[in-house]
Amino acid sequence: MPAQRSGPVDPSRTRLADACARISHSRPFELAIVAVILANGAVLGLETYPDLGAAGTALHAVEWVFRVIFVIEIAIRLLAYGRRPQDFFRQGWNVFDFLVIAAIFVPVLHGDSALLRVVRVLRMVRLVRFSPGLRTIVAALWRSLPGIGGFFALAVVTLYVYGMAGWLIFGKVYPEEYGDIGRSLLTLFVLLSLETLPDLIEQGMEVSPWTVLYYASFVVITVNLLLNILIAVFVNSMEEARRLEMTEGLAPGYDSDGDGVPDEVDRIAISQRLDDLRTLIVELERELRIDRDDGRGRRVSKD
Amino acid sequence: MPAQRSGPVDPSRTRLADACARISHSRPFELAIVAVILANGAVLGLETYPDLGAAGTALHAVEWVFRVIFVIEIAIRLLAYGRRPQDFFRQGWNVFDFLVIAAIFVPVLHGDSALLRVVRVLRMVRLVRFSPGLRTIVAALWRSLPGIGGFFALAVVTLYVYGMAGWLIFGKVYPEEYGDIGRSLLTLFVLLSLETLPDLIEQGMEVSPWTVLYYASFVVITVNLLLNILIAVFVNSMEEARRLEMTEGLAPGYDSDGDGVPDEVDRIAISQRLDDLRTLIVELERELRIDRDDGRGRRVSKD
Amino acid sequence: MPAQRSGPVDPSRTRLADACARISHSRPFELAIVAVILANGAVLGLETYPDLGAAGTALHAVEWVFRVIFVIEIAIRLLAYGRRPQDFFRQGWNVFDFLVIAAIFVPVLHGDSALLRVVRVLRMVRLVRFSPGLRTIVAALWRSLPGIGGFFALAVVTLYVYGMAGWLIFGKVYPEEYGDIGRSLLTLFVLLSLETLPDLIEQGMEVSPWTVLYYASFVVITVNLLLNILIAVFVNSMEEARRLEMTEGLAPGYDSDGDGVPDEVDRIAISQRLDDLRTLIVELERELRIDRDDGRGRRVSKD
Amino acid sequence: MPAQRSGPVDPSRTRLADACARISHSRPFELAIVAVILANGAVLGLETYPDLGAAGTALHAVEWVFRVIFVIEIAIRLLAYGRRPQDFFRQGWNVFDFLVIAAIFVPVLHGDSALLRVVRVLRMVRLVRFSPGLRTIVAALWRSLPGIGGFFALAVVTLYVYGMAGWLIFGKVYPEEYGDIGRSLLTLFVLLSLETLPDLIEQGMEVSPWTVLYYASFVVITVNLLLNILIAVFVNSMEEARRLEMTEGLAPGYDSDGDGVPDEVDRIAISQRLDDLRTLIVELERELRIDRDDGRGRRVSKD
Repeated sequence: MPAQRSGPVDPSRTRLADACARISHSRPFELAIVAVILANGAVLGLETYPDLGAAGTALHAVEWVFRVIFVIEIAIRLLAYGRRPQDFFRQGWNVFDFLVIAAIFVPVLHGDSALLRVVRVLRMVRLVRFSPGLRTIVAALWRSLPGIGGFFALAVVTLYVYGMAGWLIFGKVYPEEYGDIGRSLLTLFVLLSLETLPDLIEQGMEVSPWTVLYYASFVVITVNLLLNILIAVFVNSMEEARRLEMTEGLAPGYDSDGDGVPDEVDRIAISQRLDDLRTLIVELERELRIDRDDGRGRRVSKD
Repeated sequence: MPAQRSGPVDPSRTRLADACARISHSRPFELAIVAVILANGAVLGLETYPDLGAAGTALHAVEWVFRVIFVIEIAIRLLAYGRRPQDFFRQGWNVFDFLVIAAIFVPVLHGDSALLRVVRVLRMVRLVRFSPGLRTIVAALWRSLPGIGGFFALAVVTLYVYGMAGWLIFGKVYPEEYGDIGRSLLTLFVLLSLETLPDLIEQGMEVSPWTVLYYASFVVITVNLLLNILIAVFVNSMEEARRLEMTEGLAPGYDSDGDGVPDEVDRIAISQRLDDLRTLIVELERELRIDRDDGRGRRVSKD
Repeated sequence: MPAQRSGPVDPSRTRLADACARISHSRPFELAIVAVILANGAVLGLETYPDLGAAGTALHAVEWVFRVIFVIEIAIRLLAYGRRPQDFFRQGWNVFDFLVIAAIFVPVLHGDSALLRVVRVLRMVRLVRFSPGLRTIVAALWRSLPGIGGFFALAVVTLYVYGMAGWLIFGKVYPEEYGDIGRSLLTLFVLLSLETLPDLIEQGMEVSPWTVLYYASFVVITVNLLLNILIAVFVNSMEEARRLEMTEGLAPGYDSDGDGVPDEVDRIAISQRLDDLRTLIVELERELRIDRDDGRGRRVSKD
Repeated sequence: MPAQRSGPVDPSRTRLADACARISHSRPFELAIVAVILANGAVLGLETYPDLGAAGTALHAVEWVFRVIFVIEIAIRLLAYGRRPQDFFRQGWNVFDFLVIAAIFVPVLHGDSALLRVVRVLRMVRLVRFSPGLRTIVAALWRSLPGIGGFFALAVVTLYVYGMAGWLIFGKVYPEEYGDIGRSLLTLFVLLSLETLPDLIEQGMEVSPWTVLYYASFVVITVNLLLNILIAVFVNSMEEARRLEMTEGLAPGYDSDGDGVPDEVDRIAISQRLDDLRTLIVELERELRIDRDDGRGRRVSKD
């Protein structure tokens, strides 16, 4: 059934596409790619050390091996979609993979440019797409963002209002910290880590002892808000995880199309429908139970 | 029903009031005001940069546009109450809006005074009243305060007792940190961020190794208390949020009077009554169920 | 019923004892004592400021007023126990009150000795006994200690083992930080606040890059343990609070004997017995329900 | 029954083995060993102080007493297994005990070598095996590791990607902090404690104001991930603890074989089977209840 969703077993498919689909969904293929990504990461790390000499040239050669392997990987996964390669680009992770690897062929990025290095570092993020566990956590954290949007907006408003107030109070005296709204916001953002609290309070005391109120209220309010944000993220992601786990058994084609995200979206949709059903049953049952107990109560009183 | 509470559809209302009520509750009106508040915030931020030149004069003109818009906004919302403008002031957010905007007309605040700037910064807090999400969070955080009052009072007593003890121990040796109760409290408040712990312990070691006990016990007790306060705030606000969400469907006139707070207060009152009912039912049912099972048990034993 | 526990309405009581009991349990009496304790705290705070001049003499006189009031307070509460004053000392808070106030009459403490000041500061802790909320929190935090004993012992063992390891690794090179087990433990205790982490890691890097493992593992393990300790405290105290709240309605003589602790202990005992009962009922019911459903199942199949 | 698992009451056992088994499971024996381990720890601590003089010689003699006691302890516990001493080494803690104490007889470790000191410090870890509470916590924390593996892997990937990015951005300008991937990772690891945030942001501002985005995103993402890791550890360990507690009553031979780990593993296995059963019953009951209520509903409507 999930196969119908992803192109592979389409009737209009070539034998090449079938073979590629088989390869791209096989466990050894995935493990091999993960190993190459890890090796790529190790090489990137080694390249950061200066004075490599001959080893540097070898690493450069190895980089070309990685490029060939990644191009073959993408080609196989793209060919698995047969005559409908556009389906390949329907999934976010596939688009990310394609862009990161296609960047090799962009002439501007050749040589040793910084942008090419960034692209090579981004290849490591592909590790996440090959681990169901990491993919689930990232998906859960991502989905928890809307839940904390309110707290976050409140934190931004609070930071901005305190930034303006800080500029009004200290703008003239400490232009380094509060000279304009940008510096104010930076000073207050760093203050969120509480590291600069002793210095800033001491600095403020020279202006007026009342500035302690400014810092104390800021710290109490924002630490409170940040804690709420972080715990809200956690509660949301735990709930998502629980929900995903609950429906794990319901989705037989869990890793069928090897794309990661759609499966989870489906599972969450299923689990939400299940949750709705359960709520409905509980509601229904509650009403029935009250009726029943009413009936019983009358019957008992007749005894 | 909620319409009867807020004046707008009163029979004694003028047509102007009706039109104003319609406008003030319309989505475009709200979005426009939110946009103006955000623009106002951006202008306030820009004004903090020195050497603006011609742009500074332009910003000054824009500020006058904002003033006109805000005065019109308040006028429309005030006129929506028809012949009973006093109802407008029954809601906290309305009073806040009125004061912040009416401050423009106070002669003392004219010119470039600091107080006027504070009032202009406070306008940004009005963002909260236009977002149901922010309003709910602020209301929930606010309502959670009584729940943490006990922890907070205990923290204050602890801080004061340790402040006095700190003055007794270090008052003579380190007058800068513990010279009087004010300095003691400030030192211990900053110590709550743990930033000054290494320095203070080193300082204390010079007086006596036993002062480590003073700092260690203070840190353990207050960190413990503060964590309890923060988590208690969180648990309370989550509970409130859950309760508000649960009753969301029960309150059809959620945004009917556009005042924000009273609706939520009503909903909380409703949900609390519902909670009480549910508890009563569960209690009743429990008793009945025991009776029932008892009866069943006897019946079963007769078989 | 609670009156039988505390002496006051004993038949063997004098009329003076009755009057004292009435006074000591009255709300105005309690509020007055709380006000005097707060005033006492304010005076103690004022006395820390040098160069008080005439005000200093006035504060000295006021201290004498406080002493008289506190002695009268204790006398009234002691007389309320009539011919069985030993019952007064059965409650922890009463003993604490007595010791703190009786200390005035100890000749050694006269004058301006440090110990007398400590005793005067301790008077402020008596605020806790007059607030049911604070008393509940303190009782809950106190009762949660056994639950975290295990985590705490593990933290101590971890600290000691790392302290010994630190002395072995750094003892020779950095005698200031790791010269003996005492210094090692202090260094690692302060490291728990993470403040000295950058400096210590840098210091360690000069000995060997492998010392990073020492600090990284220490920080990960102890931060993990401390978080578990703090959250365990919180979970325990929340549970206690919930339990106390649940039984609030069950204890009609809540403040009857004005001693604070025993009431709560009683309530906790009651609630624990209730919890046991509830568990028993649930267990019983579960068995019955399975039987019942079994019976129903058979009956249904007969239809 | 548990005795059959551990050798002691085997028919093929000698009388000496029986006596040793009785001794090694007796409470006084365990308490004595705990006392000796604690004394050993105290002696190790004392030895770290220089210039001990005659006391140093005494401590050296005491160390020999400890060695004799520990060898006797291990001998008794080993002899308790009679003719099947290999069973003794089936349990992790026993192997640890044996290695730590057998190290005394390794010639290389003689004298005052650092490795011998490490082994002597490791003896203190044996405290954990003698306390059921500590053993449970360690077992629970250990078992919670797989649950956080995903978060941890994500944190490592994040740290590595940011480390590479940090080297690209700052590698040339600040070789001390970002000269190679090793220094980058160390800088970012220390940044996790937020201590170096103000300095690093200031340093970055000199390169470009946009580097604030680098640090801000790093701090937000990793603090979020770390919090999730720590809370996940806690939630897992609490659940394990609850599960262990629930099955405490089910495992009569809790401390029968004095090995600690297997008992808990068994109990967890039992409790998991119980959990599965309970879920099944609830599912079954739910279906039955709906049927029942359906039947009742019809009956009630007939009335």
